[in-house]
Amino acid sequence: MSIFGSDNWAGASDRVMATLTEANAGAAPAYGNDIWTRRAKDALDAFFEREVSAFFVATGSGANALALAAYSRPGGAVLCHPDAHIARDEAGAPILFAPQMIEGVDGPRGLIDPDRLARRLNDYAAGNVNDGRPAAVSLTNANELGQCYTPDEVARIAELAKTAGAAVHMDGARFMNALAFLGVSAADLTWRAGVDTLSLGLTKVGAWCAEVVVQFDGDRAEDTRYRQKQAAMLISKNRFAAAQVCALLEDDHALDLARHSNAMAVRLADAFAAAGMGLGFTPQANEVFAWLPGETAARLKAAGVSFAPWNDMRSAFVPSGPEGAGLYRFVTSFRTTAEDVAALAVALGTNAPAGA
Amino acid sequence: MSIFGSDNWAGASDRVMATLTEANAGAAPAYGNDIWTRRAKDALDAFFEREVSAFFVATGSGANALALAAYSRPGGAVLCHPDAHIARDEAGAPILFAPQMIEGVDGPRGLIDPDRLARRLNDYAAGNVNDGRPAAVSLTNANELGQCYTPDEVARIAELAKTAGAAVHMDGARFMNALAFLGVSAADLTWRAGVDTLSLGLTKVGAWCAEVVVQFDGDRAEDTRYRQKQAAMLISKNRFAAAQVCALLEDDHALDLARHSNAMAVRLADAFAAAGMGLGFTPQANEVFAWLPGETAARLKAAGVSFAPWNDMRSAFVPSGPEGAGLYRFVTSFRTTAEDVAALAVALGTNAPAGA
Amino acid sequence: MSIFGSDNWAGASDRVMATLTEANAGAAPAYGNDIWTRRAKDALDAFFEREVSAFFVATGSGANALALAAYSRPGGAVLCHPDAHIARDEAGAPILFAPQMIEGVDGPRGLIDPDRLARRLNDYAAGNVNDGRPAAVSLTNANELGQCYTPDEVARIAELAKTAGAAVHMDGARFMNALAFLGVSAADLTWRAGVDTLSLGLTKVGAWCAEVVVQFDGDRAEDTRYRQKQAAMLISKNRFAAAQVCALLEDDHALDLARHSNAMAVRLADAFAAAGMGLGFTPQANEVFAWLPGETAARLKAAGVSFAPWNDMRSAFVPSGPEGAGLYRFVTSFRTTAEDVAALAVALGTNAPAGA
Amino acid sequence: MSIFGSDNWAGASDRVMATLTEANAGAAPAYGNDIWTRRAKDALDAFFEREVSAFFVATGSGANALALAAYSRPGGAVLCHPDAHIARDEAGAPILFAPQMIEGVDGPRGLIDPDRLARRLNDYAAGNVNDGRPAAVSLTNANELGQCYTPDEVARIAELAKTAGAAVHMDGARFMNALAFLGVSAADLTWRAGVDTLSLGLTKVGAWCAEVVVQFDGDRAEDTRYRQKQAAMLISKNRFAAAQVCALLEDDHALDLARHSNAMAVRLADAFAAAGMGLGFTPQANEVFAWLPGETAARLKAAGVSFAPWNDMRSAFVPSGPEGAGLYRFVTSFRTTAEDVAALAVALGTNAPAGA
Repeated sequence: MSIFGSDNWAGASDRVMATLTEANAGAAPAYGNDIWTRRAKDALDAFFEREVSAFFVATGSGANALALAAYSRPGGAVLCHPDAHIARDEAGAPILFAPQMIEGVDGPRGLIDPDRLARRLNDYAAGNVNDGRPAAVSLTNANELGQCYTPDEVARIAELAKTAGAAVHMDGARFMNALAFLGVSAADLTWRAGVDTLSLGLTKVGAWCAEVVVQFDGDRAEDTRYRQKQAAMLISKNRFAAAQVCALLEDDHALDLARHSNAMAVRLADAFAAAGMGLGFTPQANEVFAWLPGETAARLKAAGVSFAPWNDMRSAFVPSGPEGAGLYRFVTSFRTTAEDVAALAVALGTNAPAGA
Repeated sequence: MSIFGSDNWAGASDRVMATLTEANAGAAPAYGNDIWTRRAKDALDAFFEREVSAFFVATGSGANALALAAYSRPGGAVLCHPDAHIARDEAGAPILFAPQMIEGVDGPRGLIDPDRLARRLNDYAAGNVNDGRPAAVSLTNANELGQCYTPDEVARIAELAKTAGAAVHMDGARFMNALAFLGVSAADLTWRAGVDTLSLGLTKVGAWCAEVVVQFDGDRAEDTRYRQKQAAMLISKNRFAAAQVCALLEDDHALDLARHSNAMAVRLADAFAAAGMGLGFTPQANEVFAWLPGETAARLKAAGVSFAPWNDMRSAFVPSGPEGAGLYRFVTSFRTTAEDVAALAVALGTNAPAGA
Repeated sequence: MSIFGSDNWAGASDRVMATLTEANAGAAPAYGNDIWTRRAKDALDAFFEREVSAFFVATGSGANALALAAYSRPGGAVLCHPDAHIARDEAGAPILFAPQMIEGVDGPRGLIDPDRLARRLNDYAAGNVNDGRPAAVSLTNANELGQCYTPDEVARIAELAKTAGAAVHMDGARFMNALAFLGVSAADLTWRAGVDTLSLGLTKVGAWCAEVVVQFDGDRAEDTRYRQKQAAMLISKNRFAAAQVCALLEDDHALDLARHSNAMAVRLADAFAAAGMGLGFTPQANEVFAWLPGETAARLKAAGVSFAPWNDMRSAFVPSGPEGAGLYRFVTSFRTTAEDVAALAVALGTNAPAGA
Repeated sequence: MSIFGSDNWAGASDRVMATLTEANAGAAPAYGNDIWTRRAKDALDAFFEREVSAFFVATGSGANALALAAYSRPGGAVLCHPDAHIARDEAGAPILFAPQMIEGVDGPRGLIDPDRLARRLNDYAAGNVNDGRPAAVSLTNANELGQCYTPDEVARIAELAKTAGAAVHMDGARFMNALAFLGVSAADLTWRAGVDTLSLGLTKVGAWCAEVVVQFDGDRAEDTRYRQKQAAMLISKNRFAAAQVCALLEDDHALDLARHSNAMAVRLADAFAAAGMGLGFTPQANEVFAWLPGETAARLKAAGVSFAPWNDMRSAFVPSGPEGAGLYRFVTSFRTTAEDVAALAVALGTNAPAGA
């Protein structure tokens, strides 16, 4: 059976499991006062080429909610793409942790269009309290459609946001995939481009359960320490989270895993092309969106391939496909193998790419 | 070095690690649609001798907050002992997840006095909206002072709560220690005594990070499914949490670990007694509160023993100790050994109990 | 100076002031236990031809927030037109009082398109917790563009909402204007068409400060009593609010005032037509949206006419106007006179309609 | 019938009604952009002898909630007397508008004991996130038992609060009564003594519905503008609130009304003394707490006197009264007359004080 349902269907990488076993030896103070947490923080500082404030949490929705709450303000709104995870797939979590509006700003390929953002931010310029005001602009990178913002694109949006008094948040649930695709440093894609806070996702790339709220602006750290606890996100045996972070950041392990899953996505895209199936987007990370006739989708299901329809985009920029075809999402992970792709290709009715 | 700082200074039990390794094989659907989650639910149903609704979360504060939010209502108050964890040690988490008041109802040994509870509940009887109204009564069992409510004591409080329209919550961060001490079944200590929802704590007893919100009343389950997601508490790779639950519930593993830590606490209490140190409370779980002269405390610290002062109780029922002595908390865990206790006894100036 | 800035620029009607003076005599119990509150409730029951639950509050945003909070549920979303007041003009108030998402469902003339609503509700049908779920559909009637839903249109939307498990809320900030235009009863436009709760706006029509949350479903009344207090919306000297409600509901006073302001809007629309200016919408309540060349707008401003540009609609259904013209909103009130309209017509460069 | 049920049983003063009538003339911009709001702000600046930030709201609970929310912070707690209105009589409103804990710090006569406050604040000194941290200390002046803090007492508490990083809030629901009793200026009792924000209550002293959140620290004003709107507390026809403020602050009208009600309380206390009834506290504002035998209370009720039992204090400092007597609260207002007191004295069985 080939698994393309989601990258969180994979468990933890072997290195993560080994590090957890190592970290399990002996006693360690709770709530982050342990040597693994220290080591993880060092790894983060090295990864970002500067000192950062870091908060380890168990879920990606939690990371986003905590990151955004730190920059919330009364009457505030978070501006993001209408298909962003925070707007669509978190059941309103960012609203629970801070009472803020989530406003969609559209654009093609799941990316915020900067011109639309500029106009939208301008709506608030009059300072009418009834309008509320922007608190943050949130970018997902790589985004929900497997597309990436370049450092320059981030910088342009960040400049607009800052001018309007809003912070810049990056939802990095697939941040490692973006780095792997873009070939840029973590620093270049974040704080050097104007990002204030990042949800660094490590779960999808190979952890059991480890996400990090990274703040590049130290001013919010003390408040966030308390907010994390009040948000019930402070893990008591924090070395458990920290050890996963160490395993993934040290020796570029996460980046290697991301490169692998990205490569599998390219291979998968080639398989669809070889079978004559169109793609919704050229893959830039570990997600492939393919246009499949209903019978092809049924055939794949019957062959035990897991994947899901993608049929209710809120963006006005819905890609168009062949008559009678539906758009389906396939996600690769660190565990995806060339054999998985080959099996899918066989089920599609061609084995050309798998043999490449 | 003897570690009595907290039971969350210990890592995960060997069985938990082994089960995690086992669970890591292969792919599994995310968000709880996997076979480990199914198996954990079965284990919970067996443990409670009935079908329950179960929600796996990463932190104890999260479990309490989610459990209480399910029974919150406008203008509602949660009544608990003034030294309860939810009132003192969660930085207001239960208030964030539902805007409710936390009201202290005092009693000796960290246990709610039912007569005081009856009077307090009566304050709300007039139905004056300015007063608010009770939403839940929360009992910690074993409580923050290592003391236990018996099933009969739970039942008496539950009856008062129900009559006042309030739900009954049990904070079971050390539930296994209570079961081990009382020698009763999980069913007898919870739903058969009138408990509506339990925060079943598995982290302190031997997990990395696994707490379960258990609801005995199925009516709230559907709402709680959505609330858990909005509360950012739904773990994507849920098999990771479920595997820990399986490891700890199957074959009475957690209960065995709790029996061990309870036994170590008794041994520790004996060591203090042998050294002529008084106790704040007769231990009923894995916590020992000892009255130590300042120089004794300093000597233990110098010997590398970890423990903490316990000096700001909010209860009016503060135990009294010898002149010049302070109250200190020592917590045992599944990893505490007789040698750890013996080393402490040596540092105290006696080795009698350790040799027993 | 002609005042068309907003209907809340007018003060209270003479009858409201007289009733307040009358109500000021003597002492009266606080928090709604007085005879004026009783009398206002009777007037509401008569107005709606059934017993209702009524909560008197000071602001329209408060009425909407309280009304919606009563039907909120975990992970819930309120679906409304993207240009609805609750989505755009309340700085996120509905989110503060219950942590819920506000989702736009578009349609022409500021009215939700039922087909789009049906599709949007269908997105939730899978019961995936990440999606959240609909809690309420909110209709503004008369809406922000001065347009009305007929009872049949309300009923169609209500049926869709109910089928999806969502409640139906009507924002009736200009409810009296809708009744006056449609010529239907309050019952026909609300509960008989499936509305669960109404924000009955009396401030814009002639009160100082009186809005009523009306619930047609008695099940939520007790919770709402407490919620209103916790929401800081319970007015201590409640007879003050109740007296205004009495003044406006008794003898159809509010309806008479609404008829007058609607008639003034028609007269105003005629004035624009006579001057060759196009309208964004055919007025159905007390709002007129006119396309004005920049110089015309400037001329009106110079003549002391108050009004405001309407230039940042979020709907995709923006009406189109003549090249170089902008859309401006003019609102009439119970105090608008034929002379006010005539003065505007003169400033526009024609006096034909005023003389009609 | 003599009315001593509460000071919010009285309506508005004649001057307030007259000013409202005057303010009703003509149109005025909404949301505070009108001349009455400007005039009210000038009156407030004069009253406090400095420029202040002022937010007009409809309820006292709203004023407290908005005032406190402005100084809230993650994990924060508001420390107040256990019998404070914010802790007991607002159904949790301060918690809804900011997710903060309300912590009781006891003391006699409903006043926070500064030594207890110092100890309580010290509990937070370790900076342990689980403890949370103080956000504000809230003083009610005159308090719920009709007792006053002097400027020196306020200053001592304010110094403790500031040292601990907490703001100082004064609940001034009966602020005018405190000023009248203490004979000090508004400035001396607030910002000169270290108060950061005041809930200035005008409703109980003679308005229909007018409370003002006053901030002496301009830094929070911009955030509070948005917060007020999001809190649904921004009154659209704000001149209505502003006119009441003008009526009450100009020419010391409110202070005169407070002096009258305070004098009536003294007269009432004398009546109880003459009848041999003890008092719970020596009245310092417009509230009298008398110990009455059950039959006396019944006799007063039968004579049509309105008042209420005061029987569930949460403070440990409950005053003690004669065997068999209960404590009852009697509140005077600007409308209380010597005849009202005389009638009560007659019902009590003596007319001596009324004749004095």
